[in-house]
Amino acid sequence: MNELQKLYDRIIQRVNINLRELDFDAEPYSSGLIVPEQMSKFYAFYGITTGHPLSLRFQNSGLAGSYFLGKCQVSNSLLYKSDIRGDELKRAGDSFTFQGHKITMSKDETVDISDSALVKTLVHNYSHDPETTEVFFIRDTLAMDYANIHGAPTDGAFIGPFATVDLTTVRDCVIGTYCYIQASEISHMRIAPGTLWVHSPGNFNFYYRHDLALLRNYISVVPGDLPHGYLIDFIEEHEDAFQRLFDAVNLETMVSVPKTASLDRYAVVLPKTKIADNVLVAQRAYLSNSTLGKGANAQENCYIINSTLEGCNVTAHGAKIIEADLESGVFVGFNSFLKGKPKARIHVGKDCVVMPHTIIDSDAPLRIPEAHLVWGLIRDSDDLRENSISLEELQKQKKGFSKGRLHFEGNGKLFVLTFKIRIHHILQANGAFYDGRKYMGHAQRNQRLSLNTIQPFQFGEMEGLYPNISIEL
Amino acid sequence: MNELQKLYDRIIQRVNINLRELDFDAEPYSSGLIVPEQMSKFYAFYGITTGHPLSLRFQNSGLAGSYFLGKCQVSNSLLYKSDIRGDELKRAGDSFTFQGHKITMSKDETVDISDSALVKTLVHNYSHDPETTEVFFIRDTLAMDYANIHGAPTDGAFIGPFATVDLTTVRDCVIGTYCYIQASEISHMRIAPGTLWVHSPGNFNFYYRHDLALLRNYISVVPGDLPHGYLIDFIEEHEDAFQRLFDAVNLETMVSVPKTASLDRYAVVLPKTKIADNVLVAQRAYLSNSTLGKGANAQENCYIINSTLEGCNVTAHGAKIIEADLESGVFVGFNSFLKGKPKARIHVGKDCVVMPHTIIDSDAPLRIPEAHLVWGLIRDSDDLRENSISLEELQKQKKGFSKGRLHFEGNGKLFVLTFKIRIHHILQANGAFYDGRKYMGHAQRNQRLSLNTIQPFQFGEMEGLYPNISIEL
Repeated sequence: MNELQKLYDRIIQRVNINLRELDFDAEPYSSGLIVPEQMSKFYAFYGITTGHPLSLRFQNSGLAGSYFLGKCQVSNSLLYKSDIRGDELKRAGDSFTFQGHKITMSKDETVDISDSALVKTLVHNYSHDPETTEVFFIRDTLAMDYANIHGAPTDGAFIGPFATVDLTTVRDCVIGTYCYIQASEISHMRIAPGTLWVHSPGNFNFYYRHDLALLRNYISVVPGDLPHGYLIDFIEEHEDAFQRLFDAVNLETMVSVPKTASLDRYAVVLPKTKIADNVLVAQRAYLSNSTLGKGANAQENCYIINSTLEGCNVTAHGAKIIEADLESGVFVGFNSFLKGKPKARIHVGKDCVVMPHTIIDSDAPLRIPEAHLVWGLIRDSDDLRENSISLEELQKQKKGFSKGRLHFEGNGKLFVLTFKIRIHHILQANGAFYDGRKYMGHAQRNQRLSLNTIQPFQFGEMEGLYPNISIEL
Repeated sequence: MNELQKLYDRIIQRVNINLRELDFDAEPYSSGLIVPEQMSKFYAFYGITTGHPLSLRFQNSGLAGSYFLGKCQVSNSLLYKSDIRGDELKRAGDSFTFQGHKITMSKDETVDISDSALVKTLVHNYSHDPETTEVFFIRDTLAMDYANIHGAPTDGAFIGPFATVDLTTVRDCVIGTYCYIQASEISHMRIAPGTLWVHSPGNFNFYYRHDLALLRNYISVVPGDLPHGYLIDFIEEHEDAFQRLFDAVNLETMVSVPKTASLDRYAVVLPKTKIADNVLVAQRAYLSNSTLGKGANAQENCYIINSTLEGCNVTAHGAKIIEADLESGVFVGFNSFLKGKPKARIHVGKDCVVMPHTIIDSDAPLRIPEAHLVWGLIRDSDDLRENSISLEELQKQKKGFSKGRLHFEGNGKLFVLTFKIRIHHILQANGAFYDGRKYMGHAQRNQRLSLNTIQPFQFGEMEGLYPNISIEL
C-alpha cells in the first residue's frame, strides 16, 4: 500500500474517532471519493498578488487540482480539486468584535488544514471563532463534493456533498447532504440531509428541511456509493470545458473584460458573455451566453448560463443560474440551483434574497416579485407562494411564524437586517462599488494575480503526494 | 528601480570587486544580458526522481527558464535558462580520493549558488575541490551564454560566452570567450579568449590558443554588445522548435524510445531520428534526422542534425554535430562544433577524441582516422594534419612537443589514459553499459523523472523574481 492510501485510511480513522458518539461511520462514504490514480494526475496552483501575504506550507499531503491563495498550511491531508481562498483572512492589526469585545490580531490569520480530506470543497472567508481568531483550522474532517467551509473552523467533522457550514465553528458533527448551517457554534450534532438552519442565538432561528423524497432527484448519497442526482449530472455535462484551461501554460481569453473587472484564468467563459465594470469571476466559474452587469459576481463553482444579471448581484459559491433574469441587487446563496428552461425562464425581482440551498425547477415561467426572500424547493407558483415572503412582511414578524416546511422564530427585522448587511459586505469585498479610487475589492485586486503551479510525485511510494513545499514572499 | 535590477547591479558590483586587480570591468558585458522583462516570462522547472535526494531552496532570486535537479540552493542570484544538474553530486557516505587521502562525505553535497548571474549556463558534475567536498559553490560569478561550470566551484569569476571551466576551482579569474580550462585550481588569472588548457600539475600540460581573427567568425563579444558570430546565429535559427515544449502542460512524444533509453521532455526530437538502447537525451538537446546508436548520449545544449552516431558516443554539453558520421566510442567535447555540410560530411573514426572547443568547418569532405585526438580549428585537410595526432603517437611522448598552435608538455601516455578513464566514466554514469541488471545510469534512472514548474512574480517591485521557495522530500 502506498503512502497516499495509508494517509487516507488514517484520516478516515481520525474522523471516525471524533464522530464515535454519533453512531456514524465515514468509511463507506470515503471509498471511491479520493482515488489514488487521480491524485497524481493534476497539478495544484496558487495565486500570487500584491494584496495578500504569501505563505504556503505543504507537508505530507496530496493537493491534486487544488487552488491556494494567501496564508495556508496543509499537513497530513488530501485535497482534491478544492479551493482554499485566503483572501479574506484577518491581518495583523485588524480587529474582530465579539459580544462587544474588540480583539486585535497580533499576527496574520492562517488557514490550517490537518489530518483532513477535502473533495471539491471550497474554503473561504475567515475564522469567526472568537477563541481562535488567528487560526482558521480544519482538522480531522472529511468534506465531500462541493461542500463549502465558509468562515467555519472544523475539528472532527463529516460534511456531506453540497453541504455548507457558514460562520460556524463545528466540533464533532455530521452535516448531511445539502445542509446549510449557519449557527455560530455547534458540537456533537448529527444534522439530517437537506436541513437549512440559520440560527443567531437570542435573535432569530430559521429552520427548513427539504423533502428528502424530492431532494433525492437533485442530490443524495448512500453509504458505499458516490453522490448522484441531477446536480451531479449537470456538473458532469459541463466539465469538458474546463479541460482546456488546465492543458495550456498560456491561454488566450475569449472575451474582453473592462479594466475594473477580473476574470480568473481558470474560469470557463463561452461566447456571447458580457462582463461589465467591477465584475468578479472566480476560478471554476462557468459562464455561457450571459450578461453580468456592473458589480455582479460569480464565485467558485458557479454556473451562469443563458442568463442576465442586471448588476450588484451576488452569485455565492456553487450557485447555478440557468435561463434566468435577475434584476439588480439579487443575492443567490450557496449551492442554489435556479434551473430555468428556454420556455420556462425564471425572473427574479430587484433586491430579492434567494436563500442558500434553494432549488427552483419549474416547467412554467416563474416570476419572483422584488424584495422577496425565497427558500427551499420551488417547482411551481404554489410552491413559490409557500416558500417566499416579502422582506417587508418578514420585517414585521416579532415572534415567529411557520410557512410550509419553514419554521421561523425570533425577530424578522433583525434577520433581514443581518442579511442586508452581509450582502452589502460581500459586494464591497468583491469590489462591486469601486469608483476608480475608493472601494477597491477582489475584482480590482485580482487583476494583478498570477497563478503558479506545483506538482505531485509521479511514481514510487509517494506517488500522488506532493514534496514538502514552503513558499514565502 | 525594481528589486531585480537592484539585485543585478549588486551582483555585477560584487563580481567587479572580486576581479579588481585584473583591471577588468564586467559591467559593459552585463548590459542586455539579463533583461528584466524576460525574467518574468519563463517558468523554472525541477526534476523529481527516485534516484536523487530532493532539496531545493530558492531565496531572493530570479530563475527564468532554468532547470534544477537534486540538491541545490540559490540565493541573491539571477539565473536565465540555466541548467543546474545535481545528479552527479556526492552523497553521504561516498568517498573522494585526493592525493591518496580518502575523504568520506558526512552529508549529501549541495550546489550553492549565491550572488551570481548565470545566463544559459550549464552546471553539472560535483565539486572536485578537496577543501569543500560537500559544497559545490558558485559565488560572485557572472557566466555568459552557454558557459559550462563543470565540477568547478567558483568564487569571484567572469566566464565569457561558450567558455568552460572543468574540474577546476576558480578564484577571482576572468575566463575569456570560448576558453576551455581544466587545471585543478586557478586564482587571480585573466585567461585570453580561445584558450584551450588542460593542466595536471606534474603530469601534463596541453595548451592551445585559437587564432582570434578566425574564432571571431564563430563567437566573440565586445564590451557593451551581446555575443555574436556563427555559433549564436546557428542557435537562434533552431530556437523556435523549443517553444512548443514550453507551451504545453502535457506533450506527445514524436519518436519511440526503447525502455532502457531516456528522452527528456524538454528535448527537441524531430522526425527520422532513431534512438537505440541505453541512449540518454538531456533537456535542451536538439535532434533531427539522426541516429543515436546504443549507449550514445546527447547532453544539454547539444545539436545532432543529419548525423549518425554508431554507439557509445559521448556528445558533451553544448557540442554540435551536423552532417557527420561518428563511429563507435567517439567523444566530442564541450561546445565543439562539427559543422559538416551535405556535400562535405565529416567522418570520425572509432575511439577518436574531439577535444572540447574544437571547430571543424571544411568545405570538402573530411575523414578523421580512428583513434586520433583532434583539437582547435580545422577547416581543411592541412589543418587536420596540424591539429591531430594518433593516440598511439601521443602515448609515446615523454617530454612534450609542439604542433601548430599546440604546445604539449609532460607525459602523453598519462594524458591519453586520463581521457580514456574519464570517457569510460561518463558512459558508465549515463547508463551506456546497462545490461538489464547492472550498470544502471542516468539513461535508465531518468525514465522515472517528473518535471515540475515554479513561477516568478508577474508584477510589482518583485516582478521577475521568485517567491522564496523550499522543496524537500
